[in-house]
Amino acid sequence: MNQSSVLIVGSVAYDDLEMPSGTFENVVGGAATYASIAASLFCPVRLVGVIGEDFPNVVIDDLVKRGVDTAGLERAKGKTFRWRGRYSKDLTSRETLDTQLNVFADFRPKIPEAFKSSPYVLLGNIHPALQLEVLAQIHKPKLVVADTMNFWITGEPKLLGEVMKKVDLLVINDEEARELTGIHNLVKAAQDIRKRGPSRLIVKRGEHGALYFDDAGTFYAPAYPLEDVVDPTGAGDSFAGGLMGYITRLDSLEHPAMRKAIYFGSALGSFCVEGIGPRRLLEVTQGDLKKRIEQFLSLVETGGPVGLPL
Amino acid sequence: MNQSSVLIVGSVAYDDLEMPSGTFENVVGGAATYASIAASLFCPVRLVGVIGEDFPNVVIDDLVKRGVDTAGLERAKGKTFRWRGRYSKDLTSRETLDTQLNVFADFRPKIPEAFKSSPYVLLGNIHPALQLEVLAQIHKPKLVVADTMNFWITGEPKLLGEVMKKVDLLVINDEEARELTGIHNLVKAAQDIRKRGPSRLIVKRGEHGALYFDDAGTFYAPAYPLEDVVDPTGAGDSFAGGLMGYITRLDSLEHPAMRKAIYFGSALGSFCVEGIGPRRLLEVTQGDLKKRIEQFLSLVETGGPVGLPL
Repeated sequence: MNQSSVLIVGSVAYDDLEMPSGTFENVVGGAATYASIAASLFCPVRLVGVIGEDFPNVVIDDLVKRGVDTAGLERAKGKTFRWRGRYSKDLTSRETLDTQLNVFADFRPKIPEAFKSSPYVLLGNIHPALQLEVLAQIHKPKLVVADTMNFWITGEPKLLGEVMKKVDLLVINDEEARELTGIHNLVKAAQDIRKRGPSRLIVKRGEHGALYFDDAGTFYAPAYPLEDVVDPTGAGDSFAGGLMGYITRLDSLEHPAMRKAIYFGSALGSFCVEGIGPRRLLEVTQGDLKKRIEQFLSLVETGGPVGLPL
Repeated sequence: MNQSSVLIVGSVAYDDLEMPSGTFENVVGGAATYASIAASLFCPVRLVGVIGEDFPNVVIDDLVKRGVDTAGLERAKGKTFRWRGRYSKDLTSRETLDTQLNVFADFRPKIPEAFKSSPYVLLGNIHPALQLEVLAQIHKPKLVVADTMNFWITGEPKLLGEVMKKVDLLVINDEEARELTGIHNLVKAAQDIRKRGPSRLIVKRGEHGALYFDDAGTFYAPAYPLEDVVDPTGAGDSFAGGLMGYITRLDSLEHPAMRKAIYFGSALGSFCVEGIGPRRLLEVTQGDLKKRIEQFLSLVETGGPVGLPL
């Protein structure tokens, strides 16, 4: 049987991270990088993005070894996209110090012919016009997921509306959901968003877990309460990648596939924050994953039926 | 078989609530009131508190009808404790506009003889010196729970330390846990708190649910994502009351009794916020409760085993 693949389109970057524990420069980052690493634990990955002349072949080789097809990773003249950020002492907020788009400024995603029939598609946080270009190039995917859209809610509301009509699952955080709809109550905001196109919606709440809304109802998955959070960079991307990887591997959208996938996404997000950049994520074994999923499940395990005592 | 009772000690009050939906004055409130109403859905309640001459008998009669023994509800000369608060538009924060301690200023809890052997004890957010006085009056309870202590963390740290040594379960919110320990990470803060006395700890996180720590590990129960939140006043007290009522009814501390109790506490908290003051809470039927618990469980139901697909 042919194993399904996931197509991941988004940024590949260098991050300079000013953490309370020290400054880490030239850390390999980018949404598509984190998502690809996470998804590759489950299924073959097709990566579409752009890098500059400065991006090392060894990193690409490592991705290839993990089962990431980099035929869509274009190497352009110039420097790789670079982001510099500073985290607060408690790691709950961060400030962008510098963004150098570099080769990412002129990025026009070209989907290789062999990628066009990918059944599962993850659109990273790129300009909605580019997201529409990607969707125009691919053939009848089973599931199109868009992840995060902070910049475009006020900047490109009309194009974003077009994208949303074509998206099956939208993955955003609570602030985005509120900003997009102007509704504070997340249950009502979710109803509003689902009317705009995506029949499925995940609202990420960082250390508070994730809410999932679909026709079967509302689902809640906690974030794993970690003792040592080192670097939250890429946690959301790892969540989306893990989720998509699991769904692609399962090759099913039957209820409750997505509920289970959210646990795997959360597990990958929880690994991601345990190391600087993608360091810990890259080391995750199937054994680690199994153990973390068990920990997640024990977190919500009531240990027997919760019946009324009356 | 004799049904176990829970002893609840705390404030009985009048609240003046300035809500986005309007101002509501002379609303019956107080931590012990909310907790007693919630607990009385499960078991007989013994209430210890103080009211002024202005407090209506009809409210007391209603509590008695619910199975609340008000023999420990002292009527003192003067006016009932009164709190006036204003909520933010999204109901996520509130500001105290006025606090009139009135008869609560001289409150010295006197535990009626018949209450002294209560196996389950809930100490509301009263001065730690008074909490110690309560504990000195009662005989070998099976479980002593203290709920919330915001004012005393900086004001009475030494006395609070004494209380904590005698408490089996501490119920506080995440801010209190961080302030008490000076540790931001909740997993580490929980370890620190559990070394100070309470072998069990619940960290309430409002709309983000509750974390529970004991020797069996960490447990997480979500808050129910409600469409219509009307008034958060008393939600934490209803949580504590529902939890204690359930445990008292079960009369067991065996794992996983507490995990289940947290669901019932969360359910009562979720009802509480659906009406102004205790209005909705007072109307909750066994049928409502059963339905809400089912909704809670479906929220974390993965719909089958979450196994690795590999």
